[in-house]
Amino acid sequence: MPEHAPSRLERRKARTRAALIQAAQALIAEGRTAVPILEITQAADVGMGSFYNHFETKEQLFQAAVEAALDAHGAMLDELTTDLDDPAQVFAQSFRLTGRLHRRHPELSKVLLHYGLELADSETGLAPRARRDIEAAVRAGRFTVRDTELAMLTVAGAALGLGRLLHSRPDRDDASATDQVAEDLLRMLGLTAAEAREVCSRPLPALDGTAA
Amino acid sequence: MPEHAPSRLERRKARTRAALIQAAQALIAEGRTAVPILEITQAADVGMGSFYNHFETKEQLFQAAVEAALDAHGAMLDELTTDLDDPAQVFAQSFRLTGRLHRRHPELSKVLLHYGLELADSETGLAPRARRDIEAAVRAGRFTVRDTELAMLTVAGAALGLGRLLHSRPDRDDASATDQVAEDLLRMLGLTAAEAREVCSRPLPALDGTAA
Repeated sequence: MPEHAPSRLERRKARTRAALIQAAQALIAEGRTAVPILEITQAADVGMGSFYNHFETKEQLFQAAVEAALDAHGAMLDELTTDLDDPAQVFAQSFRLTGRLHRRHPELSKVLLHYGLELADSETGLAPRARRDIEAAVRAGRFTVRDTELAMLTVAGAALGLGRLLHSRPDRDDASATDQVAEDLLRMLGLTAAEAREVCSRPLPALDGTAA
Repeated sequence: MPEHAPSRLERRKARTRAALIQAAQALIAEGRTAVPILEITQAADVGMGSFYNHFETKEQLFQAAVEAALDAHGAMLDELTTDLDDPAQVFAQSFRLTGRLHRRHPELSKVLLHYGLELADSETGLAPRARRDIEAAVRAGRFTVRDTELAMLTVAGAALGLGRLLHSRPDRDDASATDQVAEDLLRMLGLTAAEAREVCSRPLPALDGTAA
Protein backbone atom coordinates (compact mmCIF):
# COMPACT_ATOMS: atom_id res chain seq x y z
CA MET A 1 0.00 0.00 0.00
CA PRO A 2 1.42 3.44 -0.87
CA GLU A 3 2.37 5.69 2.05
CA HIS A 4 0.22 8.50 0.76
CA ALA A 5 -2.83 8.84 -1.44
CA PRO A 6 -1.79 9.59 -5.03
CA SER A 7 -1.65 13.30 -5.76
CA ARG A 8 -3.82 14.89 -8.41
CA LEU A 9 -0.76 15.02 -10.70
CA GLU A 10 -0.04 11.32 -10.17
CA ARG A 11 -3.65 10.42 -10.86
CA ARG A 12 -3.59 12.47 -14.04
CA LYS A 13 -0.35 10.82 -15.20
CA ALA A 14 -1.85 7.36 -14.60
CA ARG A 15 -4.99 8.31 -16.51
CA THR A 16 -2.90 9.60 -19.43
CA ARG A 17 -0.84 6.41 -19.55
CA ALA A 18 -3.98 4.26 -19.41
CA ALA A 19 -5.59 6.29 -22.21
CA LEU A 20 -2.50 5.88 -24.41
CA ILE A 21 -2.39 2.14 -23.77
CA GLN A 22 -6.09 1.77 -24.54
CA ALA A 23 -5.71 3.73 -27.78
CA ALA A 24 -2.71 1.58 -28.74
CA GLN A 25 -4.68 -1.62 -28.08
CA ALA A 26 -7.49 -0.41 -30.36
CA LEU A 27 -5.00 0.46 -33.13
CA ILE A 28 -3.24 -2.90 -32.88
CA ALA A 29 -6.60 -4.67 -33.11
CA GLU A 30 -7.29 -2.72 -36.34
CA GLY A 31 -3.83 -3.58 -37.66
CA ARG A 32 -3.03 0.14 -37.85
CA THR A 33 0.29 0.26 -36.00
CA ALA A 34 1.84 2.44 -38.74
CA VAL A 35 -0.15 5.55 -37.72
CA PRO A 36 1.77 8.65 -36.56
CA ILE A 37 2.08 9.31 -32.84
CA LEU A 38 -0.16 12.38 -33.26
CA GLU A 39 -3.04 10.12 -34.28
CA ILE A 40 -2.51 7.96 -31.18
CA THR A 41 -2.54 10.96 -28.84
CA GLN A 42 -5.65 12.32 -30.56
CA ALA A 43 -7.41 8.94 -30.18
CA ALA A 44 -6.36 8.91 -26.52
CA ASP A 45 -7.53 12.53 -26.15
CA VAL A 46 -4.22 13.61 -24.60
CA GLY A 47 -1.67 16.20 -25.70
CA MET A 48 1.15 15.24 -28.08
CA GLY A 49 3.76 16.15 -25.45
CA SER A 50 2.21 13.75 -22.91
CA PHE A 51 3.24 10.83 -25.08
CA TYR A 52 6.94 11.46 -24.46
CA ASN A 53 6.40 11.72 -20.70
CA HIS A 54 5.51 8.04 -20.80
CA PHE A 55 7.15 6.40 -23.83
CA GLU A 56 10.25 7.02 -25.92
CA THR A 57 8.94 5.37 -29.09
CA LYS A 58 5.69 4.14 -30.57
CA GLU A 59 6.96 0.56 -30.49
CA GLN A 60 7.53 0.93 -26.73
CA LEU A 61 3.90 1.97 -26.28
CA PHE A 62 2.61 -0.94 -28.36
CA GLN A 63 4.68 -3.38 -26.35
CA ALA A 64 3.36 -1.93 -23.09
CA ALA A 65 -0.18 -2.23 -24.47
CA VAL A 66 0.23 -5.94 -25.18
CA GLU A 67 1.88 -6.63 -21.86
CA ALA A 68 -0.88 -4.82 -19.97
CA ALA A 69 -3.56 -6.83 -21.77
CA LEU A 70 -1.83 -10.13 -21.16
CA ASP A 71 -1.09 -9.43 -17.53
CA ALA A 72 -4.69 -8.46 -16.83
CA HIS A 73 -5.92 -11.69 -18.39
CA GLY A 74 -3.25 -13.74 -16.62
CA ALA A 75 -4.10 -12.23 -13.24
CA MET A 76 -7.74 -13.14 -13.82
CA LEU A 77 -6.75 -16.72 -14.70
CA ASP A 78 -4.64 -16.97 -11.52
CA GLU A 79 -7.57 -15.78 -9.44
CA LEU A 80 -9.88 -18.37 -10.96
CA THR A 81 -7.53 -21.31 -10.30
CA THR A 82 -6.59 -20.64 -6.66
CA ASP A 83 -9.05 -23.18 -5.29
CA LEU A 84 -8.13 -26.08 -7.59
CA ASP A 85 -6.34 -29.14 -6.19
CA ASP A 86 -5.36 -30.85 -9.45
CA PRO A 87 -2.40 -29.11 -11.18
CA ALA A 88 -3.46 -30.65 -14.51
CA GLN A 89 -6.78 -28.86 -14.10
CA VAL A 90 -5.02 -25.57 -13.30
CA PHE A 91 -3.26 -25.72 -16.65
CA ALA A 92 -6.32 -26.95 -18.52
CA GLN A 93 -8.73 -24.43 -17.02
CA SER A 94 -6.47 -21.49 -17.90
CA PHE A 95 -6.08 -22.78 -21.45
CA ARG A 96 -9.83 -23.37 -21.80
CA LEU A 97 -10.68 -19.91 -20.48
CA THR A 98 -8.10 -18.26 -22.74
CA GLY A 99 -9.57 -20.02 -25.78
CA ARG A 100 -12.98 -18.63 -24.87
CA LEU A 101 -11.52 -15.12 -24.76
CA HIS A 102 -11.04 -14.76 -28.52
CA ARG A 103 -14.70 -14.22 -29.35
CA ARG A 104 -15.77 -12.63 -26.07
CA HIS A 105 -13.02 -10.01 -26.20
CA PRO A 106 -12.07 -9.92 -29.89
CA GLU A 107 -10.04 -6.74 -29.54
CA LEU A 108 -7.81 -8.12 -26.79
CA SER A 109 -7.58 -11.39 -28.72
CA LYS A 110 -6.34 -9.60 -31.82
CA VAL A 111 -3.69 -7.83 -29.76
CA LEU A 112 -2.37 -11.24 -28.70
CA LEU A 113 -2.55 -12.73 -32.19
CA HIS A 114 -0.83 -9.71 -33.74
CA TYR A 115 2.27 -10.34 -31.62
CA GLY A 116 2.12 -14.09 -32.16
CA LEU A 117 4.87 -16.41 -31.06
CA GLU A 118 7.05 -13.54 -29.80
CA LEU A 119 4.80 -13.57 -26.74
CA ALA A 120 5.94 -17.09 -25.92
CA ASP A 121 9.32 -15.64 -24.92
CA SER A 122 7.84 -12.84 -22.80
CA GLU A 123 8.68 -12.52 -19.12
CA THR A 124 5.13 -11.31 -18.39
CA GLY A 125 1.66 -12.34 -19.44
CA LEU A 126 0.55 -15.87 -20.21
CA ALA A 127 3.74 -17.70 -21.21
CA PRO A 128 5.45 -17.61 -17.77
CA ARG A 129 2.17 -18.61 -16.13
CA ALA A 130 1.71 -21.58 -18.48
CA ARG A 131 5.31 -22.64 -17.84
CA ARG A 132 4.77 -22.38 -14.08
CA ASP A 133 1.60 -24.49 -14.30
CA ILE A 134 3.26 -27.18 -16.44
CA GLU A 135 6.22 -27.37 -14.05
CA ALA A 136 3.92 -27.65 -11.03
CA ALA A 137 2.02 -30.50 -12.70
CA VAL A 138 5.30 -32.26 -13.52
CA ARG A 139 6.47 -31.93 -9.88
CA ALA A 140 3.14 -33.35 -8.72
CA GLY A 141 3.63 -36.36 -11.02
CA ARG A 142 0.59 -35.41 -13.06
CA PHE A 143 2.41 -34.43 -16.28
CA THR A 144 5.34 -36.26 -17.88
CA VAL A 145 7.37 -33.72 -19.83
CA ARG A 146 10.92 -34.33 -20.96
CA ASP A 147 11.63 -30.73 -22.04
CA THR A 148 9.38 -27.98 -20.70
CA GLU A 149 10.67 -25.34 -23.12
CA LEU A 150 9.72 -27.52 -26.10
CA ALA A 151 6.34 -28.46 -24.64
CA MET A 152 5.72 -24.75 -24.08
CA LEU A 153 6.30 -23.87 -27.71
CA THR A 154 3.73 -26.43 -28.80
CA VAL A 155 1.24 -25.10 -26.23
CA ALA A 156 1.86 -21.51 -27.39
CA GLY A 157 1.62 -22.46 -31.06
CA ALA A 158 -1.64 -24.33 -30.43
CA ALA A 159 -3.08 -21.39 -28.46
CA LEU A 160 -2.30 -18.93 -31.27
CA GLY A 161 -3.50 -21.28 -34.01
CA LEU A 162 -6.75 -21.77 -32.11
CA GLY A 163 -7.25 -18.00 -31.82
CA ARG A 164 -6.73 -17.54 -35.55
CA LEU A 165 -9.16 -20.37 -36.33
CA LEU A 166 -11.86 -18.93 -34.07
CA HIS A 167 -11.71 -15.61 -35.96
CA SER A 168 -11.43 -17.09 -39.46
CA ARG A 169 -14.04 -19.82 -38.98
CA PRO A 170 -17.11 -18.28 -37.31
CA ASP A 171 -18.98 -21.57 -37.91
CA ARG A 172 -16.82 -23.38 -35.34
CA ASP A 173 -18.02 -23.48 -31.74
CA ASP A 174 -15.37 -21.78 -29.63
CA ALA A 175 -15.99 -23.79 -26.45
CA SER A 176 -15.82 -27.24 -28.03
CA ALA A 177 -12.87 -26.38 -30.29
CA THR A 178 -10.94 -24.95 -27.33
CA ASP A 179 -11.69 -27.94 -25.12
CA GLN A 180 -10.60 -30.35 -27.86
CA VAL A 181 -7.25 -28.57 -28.28
CA ALA A 182 -6.78 -28.53 -24.48
CA GLU A 183 -7.52 -32.26 -24.39
CA ASP A 184 -5.01 -32.88 -27.22
CA LEU A 185 -2.36 -30.94 -25.29
CA LEU A 186 -3.02 -32.84 -22.06
CA ARG A 187 -2.36 -36.11 -23.90
CA MET A 188 0.87 -34.62 -25.16
CA LEU A 189 1.72 -33.60 -21.58
CA GLY A 190 1.36 -37.18 -20.40
CA LEU A 191 -2.27 -37.76 -19.40
CA THR A 192 -4.10 -40.78 -20.81
CA ALA A 193 -6.81 -40.11 -23.39
CA ALA A 194 -9.52 -40.80 -20.79
CA GLU A 195 -7.93 -38.53 -18.16
CA ALA A 196 -7.44 -35.73 -20.68
CA ARG A 197 -11.06 -35.92 -21.77
CA GLU A 198 -12.33 -35.95 -18.20
CA VAL A 199 -10.22 -32.96 -17.09
CA CYS A 200 -11.39 -30.94 -20.08
CA SER A 201 -15.06 -31.63 -19.41
CA ARG A 202 -14.98 -30.30 -15.84
CA PRO A 203 -17.14 -27.23 -15.24
CA LEU A 204 -15.51 -23.84 -15.77
CA PRO A 205 -15.92 -20.72 -13.64
CA ALA A 206 -17.68 -17.79 -15.33
CA LEU A 207 -15.41 -15.39 -17.21
CA ASP A 208 -17.81 -12.48 -17.19
CA GLY A 209 -17.47 -9.90 -14.49
CA THR A 210 -13.80 -10.58 -13.86
CA ALA A 211 -12.66 -10.15 -17.48
CA ALA A 212 -10.78 -6.99 -18.42
CA MET B 1 5.65 -34.19 -71.03
CA PRO B 2 5.21 -31.06 -73.16
CA GLU B 3 4.43 -31.64 -76.88
CA HIS B 4 7.33 -29.50 -77.95
CA ALA B 5 10.62 -28.39 -76.43
CA PRO B 6 10.21 -24.95 -74.81
CA SER B 7 11.12 -22.13 -77.15
CA ARG B 8 13.92 -19.72 -76.40
CA LEU B 9 11.29 -17.12 -75.37
CA GLU B 10 9.61 -19.59 -72.98
CA ARG B 11 12.94 -20.57 -71.45
CA ARG B 12 13.78 -16.90 -70.97
CA LYS B 13 10.42 -16.19 -69.33
CA ALA B 14 10.90 -19.13 -66.95
CA ARG B 15 14.41 -17.93 -66.06
CA THR B 16 13.09 -14.41 -65.40
CA ARG B 17 10.33 -15.72 -63.15
CA ALA B 18 12.77 -17.95 -61.26
CA ALA B 19 15.19 -15.02 -60.80
CA LEU B 20 12.40 -12.80 -59.42
CA ILE B 21 11.26 -15.53 -57.02
CA GLN B 22 14.81 -16.13 -55.83
CA ALA B 23 15.35 -12.40 -55.26
CA ALA B 24 12.05 -12.23 -53.36
CA GLN B 25 13.05 -15.17 -51.13
CA ALA B 26 16.32 -13.43 -50.26
CA LEU B 27 14.49 -10.18 -49.40
CA ILE B 28 11.92 -11.97 -47.24
CA ALA B 29 14.74 -13.72 -45.36
CA GLU B 30 16.28 -10.30 -44.66
CA GLY B 31 12.90 -8.94 -43.54
CA ARG B 32 13.11 -6.34 -46.33
CA THR B 33 9.74 -6.80 -48.01
CA ALA B 34 9.14 -3.02 -48.06
CA VAL B 35 11.69 -2.41 -50.83
CA PRO B 36 10.50 -0.90 -54.14
CA ILE B 37 9.91 -3.22 -57.10
CA LEU B 38 12.88 -1.62 -58.88
CA GLU B 39 15.20 -2.97 -56.19
CA ILE B 40 13.76 -6.47 -56.64
CA THR B 41 14.25 -6.42 -60.41
CA GLN B 42 17.81 -5.11 -59.96
CA ALA B 43 18.59 -7.88 -57.45
CA ALA B 44 17.12 -10.39 -59.93
CA ASP B 45 19.10 -8.77 -62.76
CA VAL B 46 16.00 -8.44 -64.96
CA GLY B 47 14.34 -5.40 -66.49
CA MET B 48 11.71 -3.47 -64.55
CA GLY B 49 9.10 -4.22 -67.24
CA SER B 50 9.67 -7.98 -66.86
CA PHE B 51 8.21 -7.85 -63.37
CA TYR B 52 4.75 -7.00 -64.68
CA ASN B 53 4.87 -9.80 -67.25
CA HIS B 54 4.81 -12.19 -64.29
CA PHE B 55 3.19 -10.46 -61.29
CA GLU B 56 0.63 -7.73 -60.75
CA THR B 57 1.88 -6.67 -57.33
CA LYS B 58 4.87 -7.14 -55.07
CA GLU B 59 2.72 -9.06 -52.57
CA GLN B 60 1.81 -11.51 -55.35
CA LEU B 61 5.50 -12.14 -56.01
CA PHE B 62 6.27 -12.68 -52.33
CA GLN B 63 3.41 -15.14 -52.03
CA ALA B 64 4.63 -17.06 -55.08
CA ALA B 65 8.13 -17.10 -53.56
CA VAL B 66 6.88 -18.71 -50.35
CA GLU B 67 4.72 -21.22 -52.18
CA ALA B 68 7.59 -22.23 -54.45
CA ALA B 69 9.89 -22.77 -51.47
CA LEU B 70 7.31 -24.80 -49.56
CA ASP B 71 6.35 -26.93 -52.53
CA ALA B 72 9.96 -27.76 -53.31
CA HIS B 73 10.53 -28.86 -49.72
CA GLY B 74 7.23 -30.78 -49.63
CA ALA B 75 8.04 -32.61 -52.86
CA MET B 76 11.39 -33.63 -51.37
CA LEU B 77 9.63 -34.92 -48.23
CA ASP B 78 7.19 -36.93 -50.35
CA GLU B 79 10.05 -38.49 -52.26
CA LEU B 80 11.81 -39.51 -49.03
CA THR B 81 8.73 -41.22 -47.53
CA THR B 82 7.57 -43.30 -50.52
CA ASP B 83 9.14 -46.50 -49.21
CA LEU B 84 7.81 -46.31 -45.63
CA ASP B 85 5.16 -48.78 -44.44
CA ASP B 86 4.16 -47.12 -41.14
CA PRO B 87 1.97 -44.04 -41.68
CA ALA B 88 3.00 -42.72 -38.24
CA GLN B 89 6.57 -42.78 -39.46
CA VAL B 90 5.61 -40.94 -42.67
CA PHE B 91 4.26 -38.06 -40.59
CA ALA B 92 7.12 -38.16 -38.09
CA GLN B 93 9.89 -38.35 -40.68
CA SER B 94 8.56 -35.35 -42.60
CA PHE B 95 8.27 -33.36 -39.36
CA ARG B 96 11.77 -34.38 -38.24
CA LEU B 97 13.30 -33.49 -41.62
CA THR B 98 11.49 -30.15 -41.69
CA GLY B 99 12.81 -29.30 -38.22
CA ARG B 100 16.33 -29.98 -39.46
CA LEU B 101 15.80 -27.56 -42.34
CA HIS B 102 15.87 -24.39 -40.22
CA ARG B 103 19.61 -24.35 -39.69
CA ARG B 104 20.67 -26.13 -42.86
CA HIS B 105 18.70 -23.74 -45.07
CA PRO B 106 18.24 -20.67 -42.85
CA GLU B 107 17.04 -18.50 -45.71
CA LEU B 108 14.23 -20.84 -46.72
CA SER B 109 13.41 -21.31 -43.02
CA LYS B 110 13.02 -17.59 -42.51
CA VAL B 111 10.68 -17.42 -45.48
CA LEU B 112 8.44 -19.97 -43.76
CA LEU B 113 8.64 -18.27 -40.36
CA HIS B 114 7.93 -14.84 -41.83
CA TYR B 115 4.55 -16.05 -43.09
CA GLY B 116 3.81 -17.98 -39.91
CA LEU B 117 0.45 -19.53 -39.20
CA GLU B 118 -1.05 -18.16 -42.43
CA LEU B 119 0.74 -21.04 -44.13
CA ALA B 120 -1.34 -23.53 -42.14
CA ASP B 121 -4.33 -22.54 -44.29
CA SER B 122 -2.45 -22.80 -47.58
CA GLU B 123 -3.61 -25.17 -50.31
CA THR B 124 0.00 -25.85 -51.28
CA GLY B 125 3.22 -26.58 -49.43
CA LEU B 126 3.48 -28.41 -46.13
CA ALA B 127 0.07 -28.00 -44.48
CA PRO B 128 -1.95 -30.10 -46.97
CA ARG B 129 0.77 -32.76 -46.92
CA ALA B 130 0.73 -32.93 -43.10
CA ARG B 131 -3.06 -33.16 -43.13
CA ARG B 132 -2.91 -35.96 -45.71
CA ASP B 133 -0.36 -37.87 -43.61
CA ILE B 134 -2.38 -37.48 -40.39
CA GLU B 135 -5.56 -38.67 -42.14
CA ALA B 136 -3.77 -41.68 -43.62
CA ALA B 137 -2.46 -42.64 -40.18
CA VAL B 138 -5.96 -42.29 -38.70
CA ARG B 139 -7.43 -44.52 -41.44
CA ALA B 140 -4.71 -47.09 -40.75
CA GLY B 141 -5.67 -47.07 -37.04
CA ARG B 142 -2.25 -45.73 -36.08
CA PHE B 143 -3.38 -42.24 -34.94
CA THR B 144 -6.48 -41.43 -32.86
CA VAL B 145 -7.57 -37.91 -33.75
CA ARG B 146 -11.00 -36.55 -32.99
CA ASP B 147 -10.66 -33.37 -35.07
CA THR B 148 -7.97 -33.25 -37.74
CA GLU B 149 -8.26 -29.49 -38.30
CA LEU B 150 -7.55 -28.81 -34.63
CA ALA B 151 -4.71 -31.33 -34.46
CA MET B 152 -3.26 -29.65 -37.55
CA LEU B 153 -3.18 -26.24 -35.92
CA THR B 154 -1.20 -27.63 -32.99
CA VAL B 155 1.21 -29.36 -35.37
CA ALA B 156 1.65 -26.14 -37.39
CA GLY B 157 2.08 -24.02 -34.27
CA ALA B 158 4.67 -26.44 -32.88
CA ALA B 159 6.54 -26.49 -36.20
CA LEU B 160 6.75 -22.69 -36.32
CA GLY B 161 7.63 -22.35 -32.64
CA LEU B 162 10.40 -24.90 -33.12
CA GLY B 163 11.79 -22.96 -36.08
CA ARG B 164 11.86 -19.73 -34.08
CA LEU B 165 13.58 -21.48 -31.16
CA LEU B 166 16.27 -22.97 -33.39
CA HIS B 167 17.18 -19.51 -34.67
CA SER B 168 16.95 -17.70 -31.33
CA ARG B 169 18.73 -20.38 -29.30
CA PRO B 170 21.87 -21.44 -31.17
CA ASP B 171 22.90 -23.47 -28.09
CA ARG B 172 20.09 -25.97 -28.65
CA ASP B 173 20.79 -29.03 -30.77
CA ASP B 174 18.41 -28.94 -33.72
CA ALA B 175 18.13 -32.69 -34.21
CA SER B 176 17.29 -33.57 -30.60
CA ALA B 177 14.93 -30.60 -30.12
CA THR B 178 13.08 -31.46 -33.33
CA ASP B 179 12.81 -35.15 -32.45
CA GLN B 180 11.47 -34.28 -28.98
CA VAL B 181 8.75 -32.05 -30.43
CA ALA B 182 7.88 -34.77 -32.99
CA GLU B 183 7.65 -37.29 -30.14
CA ASP B 184 5.39 -34.92 -28.14
CA LEU B 185 3.12 -34.52 -31.16
CA LEU B 186 2.91 -38.29 -31.75
CA ARG B 187 1.67 -38.72 -28.16
CA MET B 188 -0.93 -36.06 -28.85
CA LEU B 189 -1.90 -37.93 -32.04
CA GLY B 190 -2.58 -41.09 -30.07
CA LEU B 191 0.63 -43.08 -29.85
CA THR B 192 1.81 -44.32 -26.46
CA ALA B 193 4.89 -42.65 -24.97
CA ALA B 194 7.01 -45.70 -25.82
CA GLU B 195 5.75 -45.91 -29.42
CA ALA B 196 6.27 -42.19 -29.94
CA ARG B 197 9.82 -42.39 -28.68
CA GLU B 198 10.63 -45.41 -30.84
CA VAL B 199 9.20 -43.90 -34.04
CA CYS B 200 11.20 -40.69 -33.49
CA SER B 201 14.46 -42.53 -32.98
CA ARG B 202 14.30 -44.39 -36.30
CA PRO B 203 17.08 -43.49 -38.76
CA LEU B 204 16.41 -40.64 -41.16
CA PRO B 205 17.34 -40.45 -44.83
CA ALA B 206 19.96 -37.85 -45.74
CA LEU B 207 18.59 -34.42 -46.60
CA ASP B 208 21.64 -33.27 -48.52
CA GLY B 209 21.63 -33.68 -52.26
CA THR B 210 17.84 -33.66 -52.58
CA ALA B 211 17.31 -30.40 -50.70
CA ALA B 212 16.43 -27.31 -52.73
